[in-house]
Amino acid sequence: MGAPSFIKRLIRSVVTPNERAQAERHARRVIEIWRSLLSERGEVSGAVLARDALTAYLELPETALAAFFDQLARGFAPDEAALRAACDAYRAQPSPASLARLQHAVESPRQELFRRLNQAPGGTSALVEARRNVLSALAEHPDWKTIDSDLAHLFTSWFNRGFLTLERVDWHTPAIVLEKLIKYEAVHAISGWRDLRRRLESDRRCFAFFHPALPDEPLIFIEVALVKGMSNAIQPLLDVNTPVADADNADTAVFYSITNCQEGLRGISFGNLLIKQVAQRLGEEFPRIRTFATLSPIPGFHYWLNSVEGSLDPTPETQAALATIRDPANTEWMRSEQSAESVRKTLLPLCAYYLLHAMRNNEPADNVARFHLGNGARVERLNWLADTSSRGMQRSAGLMVNYLYRLDKVEENHEIYIKEHRVVASHEMRRLARECVLAQPVRTS
Amino acid sequence: MGAPSFIKRLIRSVVTPNERAQAERHARRVIEIWRSLLSERGEVSGAVLARDALTAYLELPETALAAFFDQLARGFAPDEAALRAACDAYRAQPSPASLARLQHAVESPRQELFRRLNQAPGGTSALVEARRNVLSALAEHPDWKTIDSDLAHLFTSWFNRGFLTLERVDWHTPAIVLEKLIKYEAVHAISGWRDLRRRLESDRRCFAFFHPALPDEPLIFIEVALVKGMSNAIQPLLDVNTPVADADNADTAVFYSITNCQEGLRGISFGNLLIKQVAQRLGEEFPRIRTFATLSPIPGFHYWLNSVEGSLDPTPETQAALATIRDPANTEWMRSEQSAESVRKTLLPLCAYYLLHAMRNNEPADNVARFHLGNGARVERLNWLADTSSRGMQRSAGLMVNYLYRLDKVEENHEIYIKEHRVVASHEMRRLARECVLAQPVRTS
Amino acid sequence: MGAPSFIKRLIRSVVTPNERAQAERHARRVIEIWRSLLSERGEVSGAVLARDALTAYLELPETALAAFFDQLARGFAPDEAALRAACDAYRAQPSPASLARLQHAVESPRQELFRRLNQAPGGTSALVEARRNVLSALAEHPDWKTIDSDLAHLFTSWFNRGFLTLERVDWHTPAIVLEKLIKYEAVHAISGWRDLRRRLESDRRCFAFFHPALPDEPLIFIEVALVKGMSNAIQPLLDVNTPVADADNADTAVFYSITNCQEGLRGISFGNLLIKQVAQRLGEEFPRIRTFATLSPIPGFHYWLNSVEGSLDPTPETQAALATIRDPANTEWMRSEQSAESVRKTLLPLCAYYLLHAMRNNEPADNVARFHLGNGARVERLNWLADTSSRGMQRSAGLMVNYLYRLDKVEENHEIYIKEHRVVASHEMRRLARECVLAQPVRTS
Amino acid sequence: MGAPSFIKRLIRSVVTPNERAQAERHARRVIEIWRSLLSERGEVSGAVLARDALTAYLELPETALAAFFDQLARGFAPDEAALRAACDAYRAQPSPASLARLQHAVESPRQELFRRLNQAPGGTSALVEARRNVLSALAEHPDWKTIDSDLAHLFTSWFNRGFLTLERVDWHTPAIVLEKLIKYEAVHAISGWRDLRRRLESDRRCFAFFHPALPDEPLIFIEVALVKGMSNAIQPLLDVNTPVADADNADTAVFYSITNCQEGLRGISFGNLLIKQVAQRLGEEFPRIRTFATLSPIPGFHYWLNSVEGSLDPTPETQAALATIRDPANTEWMRSEQSAESVRKTLLPLCAYYLLHAMRNNEPADNVARFHLGNGARVERLNWLADTSSRGMQRSAGLMVNYLYRLDKVEENHEIYIKEHRVVASHEMRRLARECVLAQPVRTS
Repeated sequence: MGAPSFIKRLIRSVVTPNERAQAERHARRVIEIWRSLLSERGEVSGAVLARDALTAYLELPETALAAFFDQLARGFAPDEAALRAACDAYRAQPSPASLARLQHAVESPRQELFRRLNQAPGGTSALVEARRNVLSALAEHPDWKTIDSDLAHLFTSWFNRGFLTLERVDWHTPAIVLEKLIKYEAVHAISGWRDLRRRLESDRRCFAFFHPALPDEPLIFIEVALVKGMSNAIQPLLDVNTPVADADNADTAVFYSITNCQEGLRGISFGNLLIKQVAQRLGEEFPRIRTFATLSPIPGFHYWLNSVEGSLDPTPETQAALATIRDPANTEWMRSEQSAESVRKTLLPLCAYYLLHAMRNNEPADNVARFHLGNGARVERLNWLADTSSRGMQRSAGLMVNYLYRLDKVEENHEIYIKEHRVVASHEMRRLARECVLAQPVRTS
Repeated sequence: MGAPSFIKRLIRSVVTPNERAQAERHARRVIEIWRSLLSERGEVSGAVLARDALTAYLELPETALAAFFDQLARGFAPDEAALRAACDAYRAQPSPASLARLQHAVESPRQELFRRLNQAPGGTSALVEARRNVLSALAEHPDWKTIDSDLAHLFTSWFNRGFLTLERVDWHTPAIVLEKLIKYEAVHAISGWRDLRRRLESDRRCFAFFHPALPDEPLIFIEVALVKGMSNAIQPLLDVNTPVADADNADTAVFYSITNCQEGLRGISFGNLLIKQVAQRLGEEFPRIRTFATLSPIPGFHYWLNSVEGSLDPTPETQAALATIRDPANTEWMRSEQSAESVRKTLLPLCAYYLLHAMRNNEPADNVARFHLGNGARVERLNWLADTSSRGMQRSAGLMVNYLYRLDKVEENHEIYIKEHRVVASHEMRRLARECVLAQPVRTS
Repeated sequence: MGAPSFIKRLIRSVVTPNERAQAERHARRVIEIWRSLLSERGEVSGAVLARDALTAYLELPETALAAFFDQLARGFAPDEAALRAACDAYRAQPSPASLARLQHAVESPRQELFRRLNQAPGGTSALVEARRNVLSALAEHPDWKTIDSDLAHLFTSWFNRGFLTLERVDWHTPAIVLEKLIKYEAVHAISGWRDLRRRLESDRRCFAFFHPALPDEPLIFIEVALVKGMSNAIQPLLDVNTPVADADNADTAVFYSITNCQEGLRGISFGNLLIKQVAQRLGEEFPRIRTFATLSPIPGFHYWLNSVEGSLDPTPETQAALATIRDPANTEWMRSEQSAESVRKTLLPLCAYYLLHAMRNNEPADNVARFHLGNGARVERLNWLADTSSRGMQRSAGLMVNYLYRLDKVEENHEIYIKEHRVVASHEMRRLARECVLAQPVRTS
Repeated sequence: MGAPSFIKRLIRSVVTPNERAQAERHARRVIEIWRSLLSERGEVSGAVLARDALTAYLELPETALAAFFDQLARGFAPDEAALRAACDAYRAQPSPASLARLQHAVESPRQELFRRLNQAPGGTSALVEARRNVLSALAEHPDWKTIDSDLAHLFTSWFNRGFLTLERVDWHTPAIVLEKLIKYEAVHAISGWRDLRRRLESDRRCFAFFHPALPDEPLIFIEVALVKGMSNAIQPLLDVNTPVADADNADTAVFYSITNCQEGLRGISFGNLLIKQVAQRLGEEFPRIRTFATLSPIPGFHYWLNSVEGSLDPTPETQAALATIRDPANTEWMRSEQSAESVRKTLLPLCAYYLLHAMRNNEPADNVARFHLGNGARVERLNWLADTSSRGMQRSAGLMVNYLYRLDKVEENHEIYIKEHRVVASHEMRRLARECVLAQPVRTS
């Protein structure tokens, strides 16, 4: 059940007043069962009633889902009178006791409801899926926000890093997990089992976080290539026909893809943990590997380039370069070393400038940059014609960047990044950025 | 580290002003590390800093623990000004938005702190142990209640039934788990490995709930004997020399012991779930088993007997019976069938009356009765000279009771029990209770 | 390394006298290491030397393999003098002692050599592979038979049914095993992962035997469809678009494919065990399933039909039918119910006659029939247009047969089959066979 | 079922002619079932009939076992005529074909019988147990040797090192395995669970070989202490109250006990493999551990001492020393440093001489010495008052010896030992041995 189809269903779902009434009735029936789960009876019958409640929900016709979430959002709120009283008591006399009373009064019964539903087999999975649906339709149904908040609060506890296991994914992994990788991979699509198999060979690594209640569902996974020297282009890494290299000769681990799998766990992030934990683990297995770096897209670069085009002092070279890359489908010019070189000379300084200085709300404008810089990585190197796929040209103008993870520096880098709003970058990157026309003092006259 | 020793350490711990100051310093140092875990740095360094924070705490000298909990209880409270403002906003205009703001403001940062600590290996275990210590000293340190509340709130989420696994414990179980059974068993002490082995033979069953983060720690376990006919005495069940019977001939499963293992999880109960889930599982494995019942102590009976002695109309038989059982060490009289029978006749109606009618705050006075009746069981049968151990004589006057679990009746029984404050009991038990002198209309004249 | 390529390599391998000499030298070097493994040193250094010996063998250039097997077959024979003496001693005085001496003298050292090689990691797998190579070239190298015999003797012990585990293969199975299914499937080829996935859905079952030393290698596997009523055609079973049915409604398990995976284990058969063990296991999981039957090709039918064509009394109908099916590529006629029916009427009696009466050396001419009848199944039903694939038309003239396994009858059926050389068949099959022109008394006049 | 009880049962078993006849009948009935297992029916019914055959055997009354083994030994021999003919054919013309025929004719059907029995669940275990019984009564029943030989031949294949797994045994190991350690330990008895637990703490290691068909049965296990410096006394190692040391500080692994568990696998040795494999594994886990040595008893020393007493030139010191240790129960003298030292001075050279020069059939007289020297170890150091238990005094006169395993020397040492019949020993040991009076040139008055 994908988000788009859910939204489509919502749109499709309510057509006539008659249908609407029927959907309401359906939804109400399930809400009643859920309500009984919160009663004394729910306490004693435990998992049995939880199972019934979950089944009733899962069997709801698509047309009744929106009505159901509406009622779920409206009901199960904290008792207003009790909460007012608790507020008053705290205002009158802030104390551990009045605080405790307030904490108790403010928790919505919906949370207890979700905790009880979770007792049913498949409960965790169904709740994650429910949040996915809610999130996907939040724009149209802003009042569902309360459902989202309550689930997010629970998930923050349930999916605590302490409960996750880091597992290597390889060709010994069950097919039911592997097919999820094919399905979820968000950075460089996996074209099928053969492509997947190449990515799991002995010179590649794939790791994922799993939660005990979702044994067949990776929460997030990362793909790594074990290579000599920091990779400067993605296509050779992805090519299924690349010969398998001897991992024991590798000196560099290149993280070339990281994918959050569960839309329903949005905001409960483990990505920053995964990347560093994998680096540490690889370092133990391969003592020769000293460099840990990404090969990342710069997804906002081309867009930004267009947006600043006006403010660029249009030298003929710049104009030519921008014109050249305008059409992502046109790759003819790449074959000429001369023209490629000429574009490179123009774009590299611009891109360095973009990564180091293009800000939005005091943070780098590029969202991939934000992620890695927030993790304590530094901007290391730009690579020209590193992703010549049409998507790579369209978003990143063919460039890719290596973010470097030095485990002994991540805290320090992070500190600089957070406190001084400064992007940590290699000398070369800073040099390049300075070359950029945008970095030049405005020429007067 | 047992609760008593912790209290003793607390008492012992602070002796001189000098020592007190040193303990304060020690504690403060750890609190500072914990505080840094809540900072931005805690976010980026993740499990690494959590590990340091946990280690620092675990290495605290005993003398500094009380000071540490004091500081932990004082610090990490919600921001008072922000909370006041959130209260005001909600009072002024109760809405999902103001509620969300209030919910956010009211959560103590201590909870986030514990969530981050939990990322460290061994974190969950250390937090459960911390709560055990806090609970054991709560009477002397009432302000530690906030620590207890925050942990309890997290544990309610973390130890949700949906995350627990029900596992059979037998002779194939690792020794590290089995020794915990010997250590924890609270109802009928296990005297050693030989005793344990008998309880795990093929005509016995033992099941426990486990949590993935505490793989070697049973949370609660139940011991079952597979027998013909409802057992009427505990000593034969426990006797290590009882020949092993063929479980396939059994028609009854007798639950003779249920033990909560983790003091630190007090109040996060799974007992009611365990008993019914085990009944269901046994029913599937042994289709011939139709009866599921306990063989339980009546721990409050002897005490109650003494307390009502004054209001009993002292017939000579009653007086004699009460005198006979007064000294638990005296078991001479049991050997005479006649005297045993005479005591039986007096005690049975009294005990039936106790179980069915002796109430405290609208609930049965006997705490074991409360547990099983609250689970939807019914009081089925009294057994005379069923536990002749000194503890059994002292607390239960040698009687034991079978609570009967009929899976198709537990909801209904529970309903009656909760709504009508009525104890569900067999016909025979009700007859016995009516015979009791306390049930007689007061004789006038 | 597939058998054909090995033969090709053999053919390719020895070209010039110079190359031949080099190959001999290569081979001799490895034989020397193998010989040292049999010495005292092999005893003390154990797995270490075994590993070296195995590696040396696995690194042999292709061109040297034939020379190697030649030397392996020549060397390592029992000591002739000692064996002669043992023969004489036994002839002179047959006794347990002289028998034991003879048994000892007759065992070729090659067997002990293989046992020691097996200590190396990957040893078992390499030896199975070695036998596969030897078997594939036995026609050209008849003296390699001794290698084959020694390995076969060991494998009979090593791959004893008592050491195999029966495991369900499904979508939770590691990909490394699943890809072997795609590779090995010999009856109805698996076209890829999507095809495989359909065959592992909840209304299908796949079971395989595994050996602990070859954890990623199925030895043999069987595919089963859980259906209502005995299937009468294979294409619907194999169609990836067939909706998944509810297995709990099934009353019949149809074994539609069984594949021996390891050429190197030829003759060490487990197939007859697998089919019955799977039937038993399915019966336990699905009590409603009462019928266990195959849907099998009749691979010798068309060939036999051609061979007997001359002896058939050529009625016009028979002639027409035979002409119709002659060209497997022509399937036009199937679309006309009338012509299909006409062919059916002719072929069914012929095929029944073929299965029940066409013999070769006192056994059924059809090798699939031999397998199932030898297992104690009975010929149950013929199905017309049951396999319309080109292979199905070519070999089985579009027919398939159900062999019925009644677990309580297999011993009895087997007895009849072995002792009386009689094919056990359903009433209907016998009736059909009697209708066949070949079964008619020869018409005189 | 222990060996002694089996022999006792045999002795007890046949009392009257009547009982004897009944035992014969019982035995014959089972033999008939076993015979049917060898028939065609055994082929088709596979594991089912094997199970029946095994059950029938296991249910044999004790009184019938001897009769059963008698019949088993008599029956199932190779066909004499066929074997004679095969002998003749080979004598006439030795060729691969005639050899193969002879190999086939010489194998006793008993082996195929055992292979088929092994298909039954528990088959392997029952066959190992059967051999144990046969071996324990072989002296009284020499004709059972054929059973022993056939089983030994199979076990050599089945228990090939390649099929065994080396597993660490610790407190996470299932109790069912741990209790076997207590039961089997043959060198330094384990007094109970507390003793066992100390031997499995973090500064100790225990490893065992397991076979997949006997998952709960260690075949052989070794106990190791991780210490600083080569241990010179056993009692401190075994003391349950010894504080647990930090294994990371250890520089030496001391193998202080190695036990073959399965009498029924006598002669199928894995001990020499285990010790070296464990050394390698420990070396990987603890890079600081450089020394691998045993702390071993010298079980034949005291006995030898008595036997050579006559040939010793009885200096007063020697006489006094021998008198002192004569009574193992008298340990008074140990407390006096002076007397202990005096005995030491006398015994050490004698013991060194014993280990290096006392031979029986060209091999060291001491059987523990034979084992370790045969494995390629060298005699490193003698330790005085190293085992003061009564058994240690009685057999080894209180001495223990360290055998040193240098993995890079074991092959070379073994070679010297085997080819030159020379005991490899440290310089110090050789010096000590030279000091021994027995090593002195005979003094001529």
